[in-house]
Amino acid sequence: MRRRVLRVTLPGDGQPAGSAPRADFLAGEEPLGIRVDGTALTMTMRTPGDDLELAAGFLVSEAIVRSTADITEIKICDGMACGHADHAEVGNIADVTLAPGITVTPGARRSFLTTSACGICGKTSIEDICALPHALLTADATRFAPEMLAGLPGRLRDAQRVFSRTGGLHAAGLFGADGELIAVREDVGRHNAVDKVVGWALLAGRLPLAGCVLLVSGRASFELVQKAVLAGIPLLAAVSAPSSLAADLAEQAGLTLVGFLRGPSMNVYTGAHRLTAA
Amino acid sequence: MRRRVLRVTLPGDGQPAGSAPRADFLAGEEPLGIRVDGTALTMTMRTPGDDLELAAGFLVSEAIVRSTADITEIKICDGMACGHADHAEVGNIADVTLAPGITVTPGARRSFLTTSACGICGKTSIEDICALPHALLTADATRFAPEMLAGLPGRLRDAQRVFSRTGGLHAAGLFGADGELIAVREDVGRHNAVDKVVGWALLAGRLPLAGCVLLVSGRASFELVQKAVLAGIPLLAAVSAPSSLAADLAEQAGLTLVGFLRGPSMNVYTGAHRLTAA
Repeated sequence: MRRRVLRVTLPGDGQPAGSAPRADFLAGEEPLGIRVDGTALTMTMRTPGDDLELAAGFLVSEAIVRSTADITEIKICDGMACGHADHAEVGNIADVTLAPGITVTPGARRSFLTTSACGICGKTSIEDICALPHALLTADATRFAPEMLAGLPGRLRDAQRVFSRTGGLHAAGLFGADGELIAVREDVGRHNAVDKVVGWALLAGRLPLAGCVLLVSGRASFELVQKAVLAGIPLLAAVSAPSSLAADLAEQAGLTLVGFLRGPSMNVYTGAHRLTAA
Repeated sequence: MRRRVLRVTLPGDGQPAGSAPRADFLAGEEPLGIRVDGTALTMTMRTPGDDLELAAGFLVSEAIVRSTADITEIKICDGMACGHADHAEVGNIADVTLAPGITVTPGARRSFLTTSACGICGKTSIEDICALPHALLTADATRFAPEMLAGLPGRLRDAQRVFSRTGGLHAAGLFGADGELIAVREDVGRHNAVDKVVGWALLAGRLPLAGCVLLVSGRASFELVQKAVLAGIPLLAAVSAPSSLAADLAEQAGLTLVGFLRGPSMNVYTGAHRLTAA
């Protein structure tokens, strides 16, 4: 989104000092509501685009769906059904109809994020996720070469479409074990970028993402590890640091967690057995 | 939090190639539940510490409270009242009792974040925030020198306690108009870092923060602008880029928004009248 800004430069940088107006591109940010079976489930501030993938990926990350068979319909609200076609939010709500038998149970509904009163703690969250039958990655015997991993940040940057213009977007890239780029998505929210990648895979019938690497442009939080685990991705790499809880969950779920993937070096926090010798 | 990692270095960097275990410090991340008048309001993944400030700041950002008079009691749940003193979540729930007459109304309760179905869109959100009688900053006539602003990122980095060890924390710093550091907080979540600063100000009886600068270590999102506006801060500066909606809200609320504050230059997106000539 193009916007007029005032560029201020102080003396002493070799640049001409002073201030001058110029055009700047800003990353788009708008709310997306996700409605499931007619009920509002959540809202996220996102960069418009790939909205159905974002909604689908969010449902995977919350352990509500695991394959396209779990979704009967997913579409952007056009306001016709609710009679609000003239409302500003049309285009900013994803409507999901789950398949018969698939429900947003009180347990699954952002269980480890917004549960009430007693029952929220990291320990419980990790146990909840690892108790999901499909969320253990220990069976994935893929091996990854550190040399391949070291090349991924550059490939992710090359693939980013918007960042170079706005400087304001997070990216998530999905790569094969030999380093080929499978999918890349960007968003003002780093969680959203990952949800878009995972949702793309869900809608393409490619879950679980065995043998793949997910690279994120920032930090590896607990929630990003959670998303990788629930998508069946055996290796999550981050350009920056992981948190303590991210490493804890990665360890228990059998995920290989790589941080500070910069230049020719990296830190392997968990699952080092999946890396070939450097 | 100390953790053993495998450091992998590839040939060609001047460093010895190979892999070796070493100790790494990771930023702590645990969920904090915020309970208001006995009802769970929200949950956030945060770096433990300054938890009461985080809870208080969140309530300011959601337009639920404006001063300490609006809060009767705020404490960390010790499990005694609910009989769960042995639960793991003890220490991870903040219990807030609002003053008589102060309520988490359906309108205020994360109104622009989790409202249902029709009613979520950027436009509505901005109008909602700007409709709050205390959320217009146009009366704040403070002027800020670009030279002072240019020095703030370095001062924020110097003040960060954990980042240098973990590389994984976002920071928010509050400065006076002459550049003196008033408060700095860090968190794995950048929203939390700002909530901690705002909550500190609330509990110290210093809201609204007229004449102050809030500097964030990353991007300026819509939600960060919202937090600055509701805290009465006239200038928000970010090391990285703002989003389009962040600039829209800043403009309408009368906030001065500075982005890409790096080295001797900066972009002024809105409210340039508050900057003295460079």
